[in-house]
Amino acid sequence: MSSHTYTLLASCSDRVGIVAKVSEFIASHNGWITEASYHTDTLSHWFFMRHVIDANSLPFDIEEFRQKFIPCAEELGLQWSISDSDVPKRVIVMVSKEEHCLAELLYRWRAQDIQFEIAAVISNHETMRDYVEFHGLPYHYIPIDKNTRDSSFKEVEKLFDKYQVDNIVLARYMQILPTELCQQYASKIINIHHSFLPSFVGAKPYHQAYERGVKLIGATSHYVTGELDAGPIIEQDVIRVNHDTRVEDMVRLGKDVEKIVLARALRYVIEDRVLIHGNKTVVFN
Amino acid sequence: MSSHTYTLLASCSDRVGIVAKVSEFIASHNGWITEASYHTDTLSHWFFMRHVIDANSLPFDIEEFRQKFIPCAEELGLQWSISDSDVPKRVIVMVSKEEHCLAELLYRWRAQDIQFEIAAVISNHETMRDYVEFHGLPYHYIPIDKNTRDSSFKEVEKLFDKYQVDNIVLARYMQILPTELCQQYASKIINIHHSFLPSFVGAKPYHQAYERGVKLIGATSHYVTGELDAGPIIEQDVIRVNHDTRVEDMVRLGKDVEKIVLARALRYVIEDRVLIHGNKTVVFN
Amino acid sequence: MSSHTYTLLASCSDRVGIVAKVSEFIASHNGWITEASYHTDTLSHWFFMRHVIDANSLPFDIEEFRQKFIPCAEELGLQWSISDSDVPKRVIVMVSKEEHCLAELLYRWRAQDIQFEIAAVISNHETMRDYVEFHGLPYHYIPIDKNTRDSSFKEVEKLFDKYQVDNIVLARYMQILPTELCQQYASKIINIHHSFLPSFVGAKPYHQAYERGVKLIGATSHYVTGELDAGPIIEQDVIRVNHDTRVEDMVRLGKDVEKIVLARALRYVIEDRVLIHGNKTVVFN
Amino acid sequence: MSSHTYTLLASCSDRVGIVAKVSEFIASHNGWITEASYHTDTLSHWFFMRHVIDANSLPFDIEEFRQKFIPCAEELGLQWSISDSDVPKRVIVMVSKEEHCLAELLYRWRAQDIQFEIAAVISNHETMRDYVEFHGLPYHYIPIDKNTRDSSFKEVEKLFDKYQVDNIVLARYMQILPTELCQQYASKIINIHHSFLPSFVGAKPYHQAYERGVKLIGATSHYVTGELDAGPIIEQDVIRVNHDTRVEDMVRLGKDVEKIVLARALRYVIEDRVLIHGNKTVVFN
Repeated sequence: MSSHTYTLLASCSDRVGIVAKVSEFIASHNGWITEASYHTDTLSHWFFMRHVIDANSLPFDIEEFRQKFIPCAEELGLQWSISDSDVPKRVIVMVSKEEHCLAELLYRWRAQDIQFEIAAVISNHETMRDYVEFHGLPYHYIPIDKNTRDSSFKEVEKLFDKYQVDNIVLARYMQILPTELCQQYASKIINIHHSFLPSFVGAKPYHQAYERGVKLIGATSHYVTGELDAGPIIEQDVIRVNHDTRVEDMVRLGKDVEKIVLARALRYVIEDRVLIHGNKTVVFN
Repeated sequence: MSSHTYTLLASCSDRVGIVAKVSEFIASHNGWITEASYHTDTLSHWFFMRHVIDANSLPFDIEEFRQKFIPCAEELGLQWSISDSDVPKRVIVMVSKEEHCLAELLYRWRAQDIQFEIAAVISNHETMRDYVEFHGLPYHYIPIDKNTRDSSFKEVEKLFDKYQVDNIVLARYMQILPTELCQQYASKIINIHHSFLPSFVGAKPYHQAYERGVKLIGATSHYVTGELDAGPIIEQDVIRVNHDTRVEDMVRLGKDVEKIVLARALRYVIEDRVLIHGNKTVVFN
Repeated sequence: MSSHTYTLLASCSDRVGIVAKVSEFIASHNGWITEASYHTDTLSHWFFMRHVIDANSLPFDIEEFRQKFIPCAEELGLQWSISDSDVPKRVIVMVSKEEHCLAELLYRWRAQDIQFEIAAVISNHETMRDYVEFHGLPYHYIPIDKNTRDSSFKEVEKLFDKYQVDNIVLARYMQILPTELCQQYASKIINIHHSFLPSFVGAKPYHQAYERGVKLIGATSHYVTGELDAGPIIEQDVIRVNHDTRVEDMVRLGKDVEKIVLARALRYVIEDRVLIHGNKTVVFN
Repeated sequence: MSSHTYTLLASCSDRVGIVAKVSEFIASHNGWITEASYHTDTLSHWFFMRHVIDANSLPFDIEEFRQKFIPCAEELGLQWSISDSDVPKRVIVMVSKEEHCLAELLYRWRAQDIQFEIAAVISNHETMRDYVEFHGLPYHYIPIDKNTRDSSFKEVEKLFDKYQVDNIVLARYMQILPTELCQQYASKIINIHHSFLPSFVGAKPYHQAYERGVKLIGATSHYVTGELDAGPIIEQDVIRVNHDTRVEDMVRLGKDVEKIVLARALRYVIEDRVLIHGNKTVVFN
């Protein structure tokens, strides 16, 4: 969709007439809805919705939309946000020495396959500098070792603060972020874990998978929380393996799943398709 | 969902305010929407919607709903229907000698995994009589051969007319229905074809797949029209094969896909999730 | 393959010349190999092989094959077995109240889609008696409750001893077998667990999956050992779910995966395609 | 596998004792077989095999292997070839303006995820020059238009002749090669077609898929022959779509399948896993 759109994400306690009220608000201003998705969590009785509205169909801009929508939102008790397709989301990508996820994200950005901007790449190695700088992007090398871990992550935090991005993507960064940093940037940091969570949390998941003798391996993209590999899952996928698949083959095969799963998850986040609800996600894809 | 619901299916030319108007109508009668799905065909500018409404939340029955909804439907130019979850759909199953699809449908019915009724089974062989009659279902044996084809299908037509079912399921029936019968029961007859259509139309698709050396084989459930294997597709799936998979292995492996694809398609139809649009389907699943 | 074949399964410590020696033995008796599969476990340096031999190409019967093969097997230090396609494997099926896996296995047996025999069905409920007895199969009702658990499983054990089957299939039996029984029938009992193991071991895996918010659910067929849901995995598969999938939907969707995964695993076992190696399997499929 | 290996590919008319003879030859020279795969085409009675042999286990080099193997090969009537893992395969990549397949192949080469070399990139557009040249690879711009088509493809042919590569990869090149060129480089040119062949041959397959209303779209990598999109298939895969998936979404989603399918097919070819048999392939993966 190349046209100019606003995306309205909202949730509230379920009741009769929510869709009627919100769609009536939009229609009353001649708003053309190009996508509409709804979901009720039947256990918590919480209602979620996403509307994409043709910006050109409205007689006012996004600021005025925000103002005019307040009474409707207050009446329904909505938690809501609205975003503008003309203001691309910005992300920081964090990477270690493995290239596949970074290469995938750089391709998606170059080709504008996902409509986002990369503000900077942060790495604890110099390995990817040339490749990143070829793209004209800033590359920050912040080595992490046991003794300087705290000060290094202070530097990382400064970069987070400086760039003021919408999301941070851990593209196989292989370092555990400090808990406080995770909390400070809650709901903003996306990780790709190289297992089908909750199986094989933590280090060397393919070795764990090999040991257990599973017949499928997978990858999971999730929001980062203070608890390791336990945040809300955005997307997962798997690939078939068999007795002939050695650990090194799993590592190789798994990369194809990791990069595609991460790219899908990033798209959902960038396109405002994801709402977090407790430790789970609603993904309107 | 065991509760009592009405399912409203509707479509019309796209314009501003359709969702607002329909959801306002439902909300104004205190109707509790438990599922809502929308789709716009951007080429034909046609709009589709499906609402599931808690019947107990409404102050009137389905007949009164129909009456009260007419003005709203007329204003929007809706093509619409509403069904009652307390009135299970009834189907005729047609089968030849292959058992897998019939066995699957009988299981779904026995276990009420899909909430439908089987009015009768029609077959051109006696093979499945005992198994069907164990279930307490009528079994009609109507042999088909070249010379008596016309009169045989007259008998089939009489059974169609007699049982007045909602849908007819060709569960690997292996006979081509007369064009007039297809037209008379348009949008009611569901077939399972043992290929990933549009590849390998017609007879012996697994032989065709083997000859072509494909690496995946599949199955397609579609509405039957006058043109062979060319009607609107409801559901498809595939399974991996390789150079070691002989035709007889494809036949065996394919059965698992056929029966699951047919069962999914039947569920979508029985639960009023399918709208036909030209030669395509909208499936709100 | 309807023809008469012998299947030779063997494993030994890896070394140069194993395939040469075994294939030379077979060729020296004019044996026609119709399938040959090999695998080396590169960590344990253990070698596995499976040969299917056209029985009619050999000048002797299976007993004489066994005798003549002994020197070759001893020289290589083989662990081996050979089976005859004319002697179908026999199984006991154990079931609770859920029908889907039992119905699938009964279909596979009726249609001889898998070439095995069902010696008896054992259940802790009467629910499936009529359906099983329609097939002319013995149905043993052995209720299990807390107080009589030990004596009930003594009865089960007597049936195991009486029927002398090749395998026991827990087709959603929902009871944990006593450890001693598991050990006594080691490598013979096959279970279907309704999760993608090792995730969600134990009770109510779909509830666990729902709580964790996974985007795929699965099923695992494995050999039963003394440790719950921890035995060697034979086959697994998954199906996609999303935020809209309630627990009851997972239960329903999962059944399609469970029954297909169990049927595949049973086929592999019945066709002598599975070798157990530590807590893992080699599956020549 | 980082070690030094030879890969022996061979096929012949099926008979008793082929495996015995070839494995005896290898064992007699102390050859350590690390992978062995066999296949019989039961219709044509043709036998296929692939052996990977640890080069260091042999007392001679690949040339001497070739000489010593001749009598064995002649006795069996083998068509055979042997390759050396220390001599990486070289390919030419041909590309148009779409980047995804090229970016994927460049990543696989940079990371040596597939162990091959890119001799040059040929394109009918300048679009990808900078990106390719950053990698230090030659980029040949040969525009194709109706009037100069013949002379342009003469230039292409000269480059083929000059670089003397093992394979040519059409990475969404979007031009039909002249029949003579296809024949001259028979069994060497690999294409990625953006449909699940044999469905939707030729131009705009996603438009064709959209029109037909299929529920899965796919991609096919195949050898190029004189007949359009009809050569032996190496690998295929699919991805689910629904009524909401517009043509532009199919184009976007399809790219993920195209690049992964092409990368898998290239790996199979580079690792000598593919044998062509009539219009089909045997892929030992």
